[in-house]
Amino acid sequence: MYRHTKELQWSAKPDRPDALYAAKLQEVIGGQFGEMTVMMQYMWQGWACRTPGKYKDMILDIGTEEIGHVEMLTTLLARLLEGAPAETQAEAAAANPALAAVLGGQNPQHAIVSGGFAMPTNSMGVPWNAGYIVASGNLLADFRHNVMAEAQGRLQVARLIGMTDDPGVKETLSFALARDTFHQQQWLLGIEQLIEDGHTDGLEDSRKDEEAAGQNDVFYSFHEGSTAHEGRWAQGSTLVGDGEIRFEEGRALQDDVQELPAPDPLLFGTYDGSKGPGKPGTAGGAFVQGAQNLVSKAKDKLTPGE
Amino acid sequence: MYRHTKELQWSAKPDRPDALYAAKLQEVIGGQFGEMTVMMQYMWQGWACRTPGKYKDMILDIGTEEIGHVEMLTTLLARLLEGAPAETQAEAAAANPALAAVLGGQNPQHAIVSGGFAMPTNSMGVPWNAGYIVASGNLLADFRHNVMAEAQGRLQVARLIGMTDDPGVKETLSFALARDTFHQQQWLLGIEQLIEDGHTDGLEDSRKDEEAAGQNDVFYSFHEGSTAHEGRWAQGSTLVGDGEIRFEEGRALQDDVQELPAPDPLLFGTYDGSKGPGKPGTAGGAFVQGAQNLVSKAKDKLTPGE
Amino acid sequence: MYRHTKELQWSAKPDRPDALYAAKLQEVIGGQFGEMTVMMQYMWQGWACRTPGKYKDMILDIGTEEIGHVEMLTTLLARLLEGAPAETQAEAAAANPALAAVLGGQNPQHAIVSGGFAMPTNSMGVPWNAGYIVASGNLLADFRHNVMAEAQGRLQVARLIGMTDDPGVKETLSFALARDTFHQQQWLLGIEQLIEDGHTDGLEDSRKDEEAAGQNDVFYSFHEGSTAHEGRWAQGSTLVGDGEIRFEEGRALQDDVQELPAPDPLLFGTYDGSKGPGKPGTAGGAFVQGAQNLVSKAKDKLTPGE
Amino acid sequence: MYRHTKELQWSAKPDRPDALYAAKLQEVIGGQFGEMTVMMQYMWQGWACRTPGKYKDMILDIGTEEIGHVEMLTTLLARLLEGAPAETQAEAAAANPALAAVLGGQNPQHAIVSGGFAMPTNSMGVPWNAGYIVASGNLLADFRHNVMAEAQGRLQVARLIGMTDDPGVKETLSFALARDTFHQQQWLLGIEQLIEDGHTDGLEDSRKDEEAAGQNDVFYSFHEGSTAHEGRWAQGSTLVGDGEIRFEEGRALQDDVQELPAPDPLLFGTYDGSKGPGKPGTAGGAFVQGAQNLVSKAKDKLTPGE
Amino acid sequence: MYRHTKELQWSAKPDRPDALYAAKLQEVIGGQFGEMTVMMQYMWQGWACRTPGKYKDMILDIGTEEIGHVEMLTTLLARLLEGAPAETQAEAAAANPALAAVLGGQNPQHAIVSGGFAMPTNSMGVPWNAGYIVASGNLLADFRHNVMAEAQGRLQVARLIGMTDDPGVKETLSFALARDTFHQQQWLLGIEQLIEDGHTDGLEDSRKDEEAAGQNDVFYSFHEGSTAHEGRWAQGSTLVGDGEIRFEEGRALQDDVQELPAPDPLLFGTYDGSKGPGKPGTAGGAFVQGAQNLVSKAKDKLTPGE
Amino acid sequence: MYRHTKELQWSAKPDRPDALYAAKLQEVIGGQFGEMTVMMQYMWQGWACRTPGKYKDMILDIGTEEIGHVEMLTTLLARLLEGAPAETQAEAAAANPALAAVLGGQNPQHAIVSGGFAMPTNSMGVPWNAGYIVASGNLLADFRHNVMAEAQGRLQVARLIGMTDDPGVKETLSFALARDTFHQQQWLLGIEQLIEDGHTDGLEDSRKDEEAAGQNDVFYSFHEGSTAHEGRWAQGSTLVGDGEIRFEEGRALQDDVQELPAPDPLLFGTYDGSKGPGKPGTAGGAFVQGAQNLVSKAKDKLTPGE
Repeated sequence: MYRHTKELQWSAKPDRPDALYAAKLQEVIGGQFGEMTVMMQYMWQGWACRTPGKYKDMILDIGTEEIGHVEMLTTLLARLLEGAPAETQAEAAAANPALAAVLGGQNPQHAIVSGGFAMPTNSMGVPWNAGYIVASGNLLADFRHNVMAEAQGRLQVARLIGMTDDPGVKETLSFALARDTFHQQQWLLGIEQLIEDGHTDGLEDSRKDEEAAGQNDVFYSFHEGSTAHEGRWAQGSTLVGDGEIRFEEGRALQDDVQELPAPDPLLFGTYDGSKGPGKPGTAGGAFVQGAQNLVSKAKDKLTPGE
Repeated sequence: MYRHTKELQWSAKPDRPDALYAAKLQEVIGGQFGEMTVMMQYMWQGWACRTPGKYKDMILDIGTEEIGHVEMLTTLLARLLEGAPAETQAEAAAANPALAAVLGGQNPQHAIVSGGFAMPTNSMGVPWNAGYIVASGNLLADFRHNVMAEAQGRLQVARLIGMTDDPGVKETLSFALARDTFHQQQWLLGIEQLIEDGHTDGLEDSRKDEEAAGQNDVFYSFHEGSTAHEGRWAQGSTLVGDGEIRFEEGRALQDDVQELPAPDPLLFGTYDGSKGPGKPGTAGGAFVQGAQNLVSKAKDKLTPGE
Repeated sequence: MYRHTKELQWSAKPDRPDALYAAKLQEVIGGQFGEMTVMMQYMWQGWACRTPGKYKDMILDIGTEEIGHVEMLTTLLARLLEGAPAETQAEAAAANPALAAVLGGQNPQHAIVSGGFAMPTNSMGVPWNAGYIVASGNLLADFRHNVMAEAQGRLQVARLIGMTDDPGVKETLSFALARDTFHQQQWLLGIEQLIEDGHTDGLEDSRKDEEAAGQNDVFYSFHEGSTAHEGRWAQGSTLVGDGEIRFEEGRALQDDVQELPAPDPLLFGTYDGSKGPGKPGTAGGAFVQGAQNLVSKAKDKLTPGE
Repeated sequence: MYRHTKELQWSAKPDRPDALYAAKLQEVIGGQFGEMTVMMQYMWQGWACRTPGKYKDMILDIGTEEIGHVEMLTTLLARLLEGAPAETQAEAAAANPALAAVLGGQNPQHAIVSGGFAMPTNSMGVPWNAGYIVASGNLLADFRHNVMAEAQGRLQVARLIGMTDDPGVKETLSFALARDTFHQQQWLLGIEQLIEDGHTDGLEDSRKDEEAAGQNDVFYSFHEGSTAHEGRWAQGSTLVGDGEIRFEEGRALQDDVQELPAPDPLLFGTYDGSKGPGKPGTAGGAFVQGAQNLVSKAKDKLTPGE
Repeated sequence: MYRHTKELQWSAKPDRPDALYAAKLQEVIGGQFGEMTVMMQYMWQGWACRTPGKYKDMILDIGTEEIGHVEMLTTLLARLLEGAPAETQAEAAAANPALAAVLGGQNPQHAIVSGGFAMPTNSMGVPWNAGYIVASGNLLADFRHNVMAEAQGRLQVARLIGMTDDPGVKETLSFALARDTFHQQQWLLGIEQLIEDGHTDGLEDSRKDEEAAGQNDVFYSFHEGSTAHEGRWAQGSTLVGDGEIRFEEGRALQDDVQELPAPDPLLFGTYDGSKGPGKPGTAGGAFVQGAQNLVSKAKDKLTPGE
Repeated sequence: MYRHTKELQWSAKPDRPDALYAAKLQEVIGGQFGEMTVMMQYMWQGWACRTPGKYKDMILDIGTEEIGHVEMLTTLLARLLEGAPAETQAEAAAANPALAAVLGGQNPQHAIVSGGFAMPTNSMGVPWNAGYIVASGNLLADFRHNVMAEAQGRLQVARLIGMTDDPGVKETLSFALARDTFHQQQWLLGIEQLIEDGHTDGLEDSRKDEEAAGQNDVFYSFHEGSTAHEGRWAQGSTLVGDGEIRFEEGRALQDDVQELPAPDPLLFGTYDGSKGPGKPGTAGGAFVQGAQNLVSKAKDKLTPGE
């Protein structure tokens, strides 16, 4: 259950309107690594967490903070749309190429759809979707995603800062920058804690015993003149176990050629008969037909009076 | 430029048809962390890499390997669809609940759309989309994504292995399991190499000097009875610098209330006038109107004879 | 079954080309509340209507009118793209910031993809999708959507009118404005008719008897300092029945804490064992594995010769 | 800014596992009218609200409640996935068609992707997306959407209740049913309040004076044998003003035929020349070409040393 | 402008309910090549057609017919959902695996969302979207799409027929089969007519003179052991002109290696400095920053009193 | 399995930066008919091909070439983003409308998200998705798609060429133009080869015998004043068989009116009772309820100790 308070966590007061910058700011609100993503993702991961206590509480603490970040950045954006130059200044604008750029580059949905507020989309207008959320129930795998999401989000904020010189906007984004640093660190420390608590050794290794022998310590190169062997990833000891990393040229490790058997004739695929006649009734088509016959027969039996 | 050979890197030969399992296998082909994602992502990151040499070559080597993994898993799936029980076996199926499950649970597009082949979709039929790709030009941020993608993908493969007892399918998936272990390790070693080469200290920290003071070392809790303070993430030294992590209750760090200024009257938002009249011509509507006037006037001048 | 005639219902003749305005006009063609939505939605609702006679006929009448509105607005848009300033006028344009705005703000797909016609997308280029359609079979719920769609669409047209001073464009949009007024009214009268005909009392109330006691007449506030109690929604008599609306602070109405049981070990979620061992074979993983065993066994029995 | 507490607002305790029902329950979590939609929509509308006080507070109160509803329903779903029949019970299942149905009908992502938790998708696996959100800044138009969303969501819950006989599930859904009744009523009362406060007369009517004369009070029928004239929507007084609704057969109201002018030759559309030669340089192609020439020239001038 | 009549073009009366088949039938209603696609596509192409007369009329005739096909197939689907086995027959169903298959395989949205009607989605629940539409303004390119769409749609219908033995369903689908044959032929004859009328020679060849010399008549093979040279496509005379097709091994046709210049430092990409320092201010970051400075300055000048 | 080499197939060296053109170029990279589509589509078709030998090899040869085309065009785009006018030139830009256009029209994700590289999206920012891929297993139907995709892609390239005068860009696009010509021809020759090899007569005609009599040779017109009868498609001999094409006015071919039976009362659709009471237990709702009862009962029996 959640509660709301009216104050923002941090200020969101631009010094000047800037509709062109508002269009760009959408990326860190409703983009792949915008605040909507981390807000929904951390709440989802927290709710899904099977271990009561510090992990679950920590994830939900941050998730709850992030709701406020969406609130803060959408407010900043709405204020950036206010007080833009008016009709009576049209003549001045006519002589001004920079203003012309704003006319061409502003987000039409900011006026037509939301009436002067942020849209729940990225900077190109693509609606945020839940396919951005990662929540697998496995905290190592999910914390790895969280470190990354904070790193990508922070990088985008750093790029955006370079595109404005408005002190108020910079003030808000400097907060986002700092929190993203802290949160990157926090998820990395979360992985350390998972290791310390014995949940993992840092690599996702479920069903480790079932890995194909000799395939988890070899770098395959498929590239003429590749210098990939120079990196640490292609030499030295493995991170897990006491193996040694090998560097090999990529090759077929067996003789299975990419071919398919004769097709089900009821699917009407193109086939030259070279593998003999397709078995009648193999694959989906006839299979389903058989099933439908069944269903019909069953229904006949069940609904005698129909 | 790329070249192709007919052999698969590893075998993809199921012992028996299993249309229900084929439906599930779609997740690791065309899902968020399926092989299509890593294939496209690593090629994209490699092409985008600004540093010639071992990094670029390594990324492209793996990307090229992954094209072959899509080929291998789609082949496995197509073979799982072959030789399923036929029409003449309908009567036997009528008495068999397990077969009935297959009828209900198979993917209709495997028959209707692809004619017995894999679809480029996840296990629920959602088409793969390039919104899954991450390629920022910043190798630290991107390698963090790659570690995660391999961890998530491996976890899904581990779960899928538990849903079959077909030795041929297990053979193929054991290879995926091993490669995902290796690739997790490889991207982690890639980060070590980035650190060793002086590209980063492991945290994304562009514009570090512009972070809001005192906000990059504090954990805020927004949760009654939270035990989040027990974790390493809320105490001890920071990972960067020589700071000490603080744990505080989340609060408004200033007094900016989430309110918006009076709206542009030409956008017809609901407004009670409590902040005085909205300035005529502020915001999007009138601004654009001014622009259009401009455009029209300019055109009038430019196309006198029209 | 449908028929077509060549005349447009209303004129669609802009006085001047305006590629920048054409880009904005896409919103009311292929956006969430554009003409494509109401066209498809009303036809779908009409086809789905179970009651022959005035309701079904009315819905289909309007749906059929709306096909013509898509035709009309796409024609208007195509004509807005005609005769824009030409190459030989490039030098004049070079000195003109308003024209520069058009260069930056026009929709590239209008040239590259459709060759001078409207796109079936919104103003940011997102393709129209059928997720915008609402058709539940319940006319009260659907008419409520229709009122809203006409109100939102009309609001967007009103905003768009403020962005042009082309008399021909205004003529077309003034028609859209009037029809959207009429159609709002019509769906509201449709609800009145549903009430008069005894289909509903104006609230969707299926399985009314199964509502949780005491939960359908209380406003919960989750907001410090909320003034929500001042509104009609938090006091006075209920719209249905003879109840009295109560205003209460939101709270947990029972003691169920958001926790989950021990996880299925075969899903490899993170778990500290604090709730005892997860039951082997609970949840998806093992369950499905059991099923697959079944399927395999059944197939073995059914396909002896394979 | 938001805060979290661990207790759920209402209980979410199913009596028995039911993976097939969990698959269906996704619709009211991540579907078009699921809890994710109302949660995000009300918060967005509340943040965007320009009028401080009771309206803004009310919207945010409900939005905050809805976050807890997503939490509650995802918890219910996760618990429905627990303790499903296990591997050792496979033989029993083999004889049981109802269990077979579950095998076929369960959501594969519940096991493979989320590891036993809800997905942020609808019942067919389509990820929730922000295109479901409506927030226009105009409270009449938005409250109309809210009434509808509660009605549609409630209808779906009512349908879902009929698909289970689990008392614990019914207990949770009975709460959803009651809240949806209250919220429908609340948004209707919100419209009454808007009228009372003088914000609207109940119809969206921005730029009312610019409506095409005679087009806002006439029902057009495009349907042979239509009985639509029998309804209230086609006769009697108008809801606004003192007009009388007319019923007419749909017809072209002017003589503009759906034809387009001669195309820009640089777009290579098919054209028979019947309207004379397309003016060189009309439309997008040449226009843009002109622009590019400009840009190039400008750059040449600006970067003399390049 | 359009008109509607109540009769269906062809009958749509299934003999028996079949919810499992209804789920599959969605593919040819709302899938990539379903009736919604051809309906919207032909109307769009027709409206966009620049040549009045037989082409435009023909396209619109077929587009109008296709609206009726959507109507017909959705009606068929709704009728397939009627009268399915009822609650009182539950015990019979308990013993029947074929009915169990239906339980698992039916589309939950048919009950929960549409209340017993078709959904505007494909067979996996993905909403139809306008990205399926092709309308380029070039009739050769578009007719090629139309031939293909009819071929793909027909193939899917042929596969679907094999999955039912209901005479009423087959009757409806036999009509779809015949119309798809006719329409394939029609678009092929449309191409013949385009050739006869001098609009094209059958290949899209705009800007033919600007093709790279020697690159439009050579087959490149990038495949070890490829037998592609055996086909007509790799030998013999070209279809256009009097050339001869050559077969060559794919190779780099020049020496441009896939490398990128030094990056803009303000974008914080990973870079080893090997190409010298990135020019300050190159690329997006600084460029935009410069622009923003401009905008700010311009606004300062324009809004002196703010 | 695939291999990579560092050289590009063809040069990709623009003479000058042009961020506005880079934004447009996205269409032929990640749009509906961009290089990503043909790359993925041909590989998918090749892998799915059931006939070993020349067809399969040919398709895979071209698919492999296309990977390199994505590489080539993304490289071109990245280079177009380099060295754009810098901050120190801001004052010059302030006086320059053409530069202002670039500011407004550039793609913000090129800076914020990809850090100076291409995005896997179309020119409006919509992510590429696998719904663009066509691979049915039927080579005639798929080759028809391939001809079309090459024609549409080529047309877009031809339009794009007209929007630049950069010799380096033109050089790259002239190669795309030539290859698209060759590939159009190649797929047409592929169809000739299919006919020669006896796989088809050029029309998709699966289950030809099941076509509705008299419906595969008649053109229906639904258009007042249609001149569609003048075309070859409405007269003369049929392409298959020895029939004669007929031209008729579209009409209902039977008397089935678009009506639906009485609804299942448990779905709470609006219904006036005019067709008698809906049968209790028809359709989805009750059916599923019955099923759930079953499942519950089965579980009770199977898990006695719970």
